[in-house]
Amino acid sequence: MEDLKKIIRSIPDFPKPGILFYDITTLFQDAQGLKRCLDLLEEQYKGKPIDKIAGIESRGFIVGAALADRLNCGFVMIRKKGKLPWDTVAETYELEYGTDELEIHVDAIKEGEKILVVDDLLATGGTLVAASNLIKKVKGEVFGIACVIELLGLKGRSKLSSYPFFSLVEYEGG
Amino acid sequence: MEDLKKIIRSIPDFPKPGILFYDITTLFQDAQGLKRCLDLLEEQYKGKPIDKIAGIESRGFIVGAALADRLNCGFVMIRKKGKLPWDTVAETYELEYGTDELEIHVDAIKEGEKILVVDDLLATGGTLVAASNLIKKVKGEVFGIACVIELLGLKGRSKLSSYPFFSLVEYEGG
Repeated sequence: MEDLKKIIRSIPDFPKPGILFYDITTLFQDAQGLKRCLDLLEEQYKGKPIDKIAGIESRGFIVGAALADRLNCGFVMIRKKGKLPWDTVAETYELEYGTDELEIHVDAIKEGEKILVVDDLLATGGTLVAASNLIKKVKGEVFGIACVIELLGLKGRSKLSSYPFFSLVEYEGG
Repeated sequence: MEDLKKIIRSIPDFPKPGILFYDITTLFQDAQGLKRCLDLLEEQYKGKPIDKIAGIESRGFIVGAALADRLNCGFVMIRKKGKLPWDTVAETYELEYGTDELEIHVDAIKEGEKILVVDDLLATGGTLVAASNLIKKVKGEVFGIACVIELLGLKGRSKLSSYPFFSLVEYEGG
C-alpha cells in the first residue's frame, strides 16, 4: 500500500526525542486517501460475520466508525478511564512507565457477538491486547483486529497471535 | 427524528448531580441507528460544495469521519490541546469553571476550502464557536455546523447564528 505511505507524514522526535511518529492526519484529510483506506478495509471484511466494530479512543474512532457504516455494523467505543457515562468494565495495561486503563460499557456488546477491533496503529500491542480482553469480559468474541499502520520493529503482532490481524501499511521501525 | 430518540439513553446526574446526560453510545452501537443517523446527514449535505469535514474530539470523530466517507470529503481532526503532533493553531474557550483549548493542524485546510464542522451534541455552543474560529484562523470557510443532538434549553444555536446549523434530535432541557 505504497500509495497510502506517501500521504502519511513522518515527524521526528514526537512525542519525545528519538521517536519517529507516523502522522495519519494527513491521510485522513485527503479525500482520496481516506476513501482508499476504507476501500481496502471494506474489501478485507465485507460479507464476514461481524456484528460490531469496536474503535479505540480516539483515532480508532475515525477508521472504526466509517468502516462500521460501510459494513452495516454497529460501532462501540473503547475509551480511556472515566470517559464513558454508563456502567463499565475496565482493563489495565502497562505503559513504558506506569499503567493506563481502558473501559467499555457493560451493555455495549451482546453475548456471543463477533467484534472487529479497530485502531489507527499497532505499536507494542498493549492497547490492542487490553481492548481485546475487554471484548471478552463483556462476553463478545474477537473476530479480528485491524489497524491502518503497523510498526514491525515493535513486534506487537506477536502479542495478538490469538486473533487474525490485518494492517494496511507497514513500517520497519518502531 | 423520534426513532433516533428511542435509542439514545438518558443518564441522570452525569457527569454531576442535576445534569441529565444524553448517551449517544447506544445509538452508535445500533447498526440501524448509526445508518439512519448518517442517512439523514448525507441527505442534508449531499451535493453541497463541502471540501472537508472537521470533527471535534472525540465523539465528533465518529459521526464526522463516517459522514466524510459518505460525502467523499477529507476528514480533519479538531483536538484538545497537546494531542496533535504537527504545528497547530489554538483557540481558547470558556467552560463553566475555567477555560479549555482546541487545536487544529496549521496545514489541515487549504485557503478557501469549505468546511462542515461536526460534533455529537450542541449544548452552550462554546466548543463549536471555538472550532469554527479555528477553521477561520487557518483560512478555511465554515460551510455549516452539524450535530446529532441539540439541547434547546441552553440556546447554543444563538451563538452560532453566523453559520447554517443542522441537528437531528432536539431535547427541550439543557
